[in-house]
Amino acid sequence: MQQKNGEPLGAPKHVLIVGGGFGGLRAARDLAGAPVRITLLDRCNHHLFQPLLYQVATAGLTAEEIASPIRSVLRKQRNVRVLLGEVTQVDLEARVAHLAGGQVIGYDYLIVAAGTETNIYGHNDWQPYMVGLKDLEDAFELRRRILLTFEAAERCNNPEERRRLLTFCVIGGGPTGVEMAGAISELSRSILQRDFRAISGDMLRVVLVEMGPRVLAAFDPRLSAQAQKDLAQLGVEVHTKGAVTKISADGVQLGDTYIPCSVVCWAAGVKPQSLAKNMGIAVTRRGNIPVTSDCSIEGHPEAFAVGDIASFIPAGQSLPLPGQAPVAMQQAGSVAANIKRDLKQKKRKPFAYFDKGSMATIGTSRAVLQYGKFRMSGLLAWLAWIFVHVYYIIGFRNRTLVMFNWFWAYLTKRRGARLLAQAVAVPEPSLPAAASSPAQQPAPATEGVA
Amino acid sequence: MQQKNGEPLGAPKHVLIVGGGFGGLRAARDLAGAPVRITLLDRCNHHLFQPLLYQVATAGLTAEEIASPIRSVLRKQRNVRVLLGEVTQVDLEARVAHLAGGQVIGYDYLIVAAGTETNIYGHNDWQPYMVGLKDLEDAFELRRRILLTFEAAERCNNPEERRRLLTFCVIGGGPTGVEMAGAISELSRSILQRDFRAISGDMLRVVLVEMGPRVLAAFDPRLSAQAQKDLAQLGVEVHTKGAVTKISADGVQLGDTYIPCSVVCWAAGVKPQSLAKNMGIAVTRRGNIPVTSDCSIEGHPEAFAVGDIASFIPAGQSLPLPGQAPVAMQQAGSVAANIKRDLKQKKRKPFAYFDKGSMATIGTSRAVLQYGKFRMSGLLAWLAWIFVHVYYIIGFRNRTLVMFNWFWAYLTKRRGARLLAQAVAVPEPSLPAAASSPAQQPAPATEGVA
Repeated sequence: MQQKNGEPLGAPKHVLIVGGGFGGLRAARDLAGAPVRITLLDRCNHHLFQPLLYQVATAGLTAEEIASPIRSVLRKQRNVRVLLGEVTQVDLEARVAHLAGGQVIGYDYLIVAAGTETNIYGHNDWQPYMVGLKDLEDAFELRRRILLTFEAAERCNNPEERRRLLTFCVIGGGPTGVEMAGAISELSRSILQRDFRAISGDMLRVVLVEMGPRVLAAFDPRLSAQAQKDLAQLGVEVHTKGAVTKISADGVQLGDTYIPCSVVCWAAGVKPQSLAKNMGIAVTRRGNIPVTSDCSIEGHPEAFAVGDIASFIPAGQSLPLPGQAPVAMQQAGSVAANIKRDLKQKKRKPFAYFDKGSMATIGTSRAVLQYGKFRMSGLLAWLAWIFVHVYYIIGFRNRTLVMFNWFWAYLTKRRGARLLAQAVAVPEPSLPAAASSPAQQPAPATEGVA
Repeated sequence: MQQKNGEPLGAPKHVLIVGGGFGGLRAARDLAGAPVRITLLDRCNHHLFQPLLYQVATAGLTAEEIASPIRSVLRKQRNVRVLLGEVTQVDLEARVAHLAGGQVIGYDYLIVAAGTETNIYGHNDWQPYMVGLKDLEDAFELRRRILLTFEAAERCNNPEERRRLLTFCVIGGGPTGVEMAGAISELSRSILQRDFRAISGDMLRVVLVEMGPRVLAAFDPRLSAQAQKDLAQLGVEVHTKGAVTKISADGVQLGDTYIPCSVVCWAAGVKPQSLAKNMGIAVTRRGNIPVTSDCSIEGHPEAFAVGDIASFIPAGQSLPLPGQAPVAMQQAGSVAANIKRDLKQKKRKPFAYFDKGSMATIGTSRAVLQYGKFRMSGLLAWLAWIFVHVYYIIGFRNRTLVMFNWFWAYLTKRRGARLLAQAVAVPEPSLPAAASSPAQQPAPATEGVA
């Protein structure tokens, strides 16, 4: 391993980074010049620009436009080794990580940045009838179900069943749910409609369900109201105070209200990856790894956790920082800087979060933004949203052409990404469903209603 | 349904087209102005530019660059309805097609253009250990296996096993096999190598197996020799007269020779889709639908078969036309013209094939081309190959930007399409394999060798 500016310290320290998301990647990059050898482990081979994942699910962008192989991103950094693998357990005392498959990797420094996964709060029986939105597989599955239900609707002669096939339900009124509902509505109304003969805009129904009293609860109430207005203009039906009591193959039950629908997107919650529980420490009530003021684990200054798998409570506050990309990146940067300070026998600095504000987009020309006491909505907020996302995409891809493609695709709304890889014969909706696993086929294809 | 130039014929005739490949799509388009209503049925929702499928398998192009939703392609043609569905059977007497799922569709004219599928000649036990190259699913699976085996090799400490992991075997020395072998070698040696730390070019092995005495048997022997030379320069090991006797999880047996390898691509043959056998007529020995001089089925002037599901033997010849895109397109054009002649009570014209020559590419700047007695190889042939493929891609996509992307991607050899959608933990090759279905996981991930 190369040491660009390393003093003769003997063997370089080994930094093990678990996860190649916003936190893990930033940590690896910030340690580029340091006299360490880095191993970055991820279960996937790519870094995913998650904020735009909903666009893959709605056929606006291709996977390649928002994801890059991690080893490509870090190609030029000689002190890092990228491995495909899943860490299932960490022994903090022995300073080793256990991988699925049995391999063991030791470390001098550990940075856990494994993130979160979809949380359905124990309702495992709902699983086959809904799709989360956390990784590319989710996005592909959502896209597949959306496209297939249009195909089924095109062939369906029963108006009631066709109405059900053309009803989409998004659960969770946070930024992901709002963006997803808006994007499904835009995709459906403006694009797919012109390719089909039997479907028209008035048959479509997009429902957004939020348990709390308003969408975008983390934003200013005025922005929530604006977002709700924008959603209504895009044709999205918003049900606030709506608690999902059941999700089945042909619809969603909200207490007394039943919504017959075909595709259900679950954006109502995440939980830390199970690795958090397998590190021999007490996790928080939500399952996060509690960390101290320098993002290290109590009693283990060599082990850090960053991003939404960690729970960092700023001094003098009671709530942990939110699970957002800027938090993960800033924490990773702080951790990398403290490791470098360690190597120079300097004193560590505590992590301080700099809030860059929040934004969410509802659809073309519609977004909300808040920064400190500043609030904005509409076209300008949307342009700011585009600018920030393009800026960060360039940050990791650094390819003008890709950015141009992305921008072009977004503006022209070409939906090139509308491919169904598998050959699928859609059974007639008016015929009995074939006996097949619901997890393998989407609701519209298997659930026939006369 | 609109009738642009239709005389008052009563209800317009219903033309049922089975398959949205080169033949089916051409037939639909050529009937654009005719006073007919068309239903185009396909098992997939996209038209696939199959000649470039190997580039998706080797991460050179994304699926979206070579495939388009059929209903997008035909969006502006008002007399056509596109449906997702699989025709399992045709009753030529009753003039109805039966779909998987039970639906029945009647027709006045039938055009069967359902194509072929991979033929492994009854060796179903080989299936889990090889991948064909006929559709997007195949290409994604090949890409997944290729990328995963590199990941496994990067983590493997046993030189012999690493060598096996880095050995790729392509079976079949026709254009597809030659293109695939060349592309795997180029991908491996020039691209992936620089992203990995533990793998170097001399560990790679790409083997092309051809049963006959030479590769590209349909070409002039001089071009075969040139292709074989080009392959050798790209580092591809060619085994001619090599009969595969067994394919297992960890290698390919060629008589007495055993090739330990990880990824096996099967490009050694295709067979007509099973629909051919389910039409109540005698098929040829190879399973094709025999057709008469106007591409119709004997005794059924209203039912046609075009492309590689059909067997058309030109007058005075003994061999049927080859299963190539130009044959399918020309036949479809002839069928569409004859249907239009029928509607005007004119006499049909027999189909005459115009041979536009053949070409195959081996790698960047390497291709062979023959047209009549003319033969060419090298850079100029490669540029001709590019020109022809870009021309036909534009023909169906008609998007300058897409063509530019494609050309750019091809020239710069960016391999953006290197994403593994699934989170996969690769078990250590030196540990016992996990108990899992071999069809679900690629050989490198499941077959551990100490």
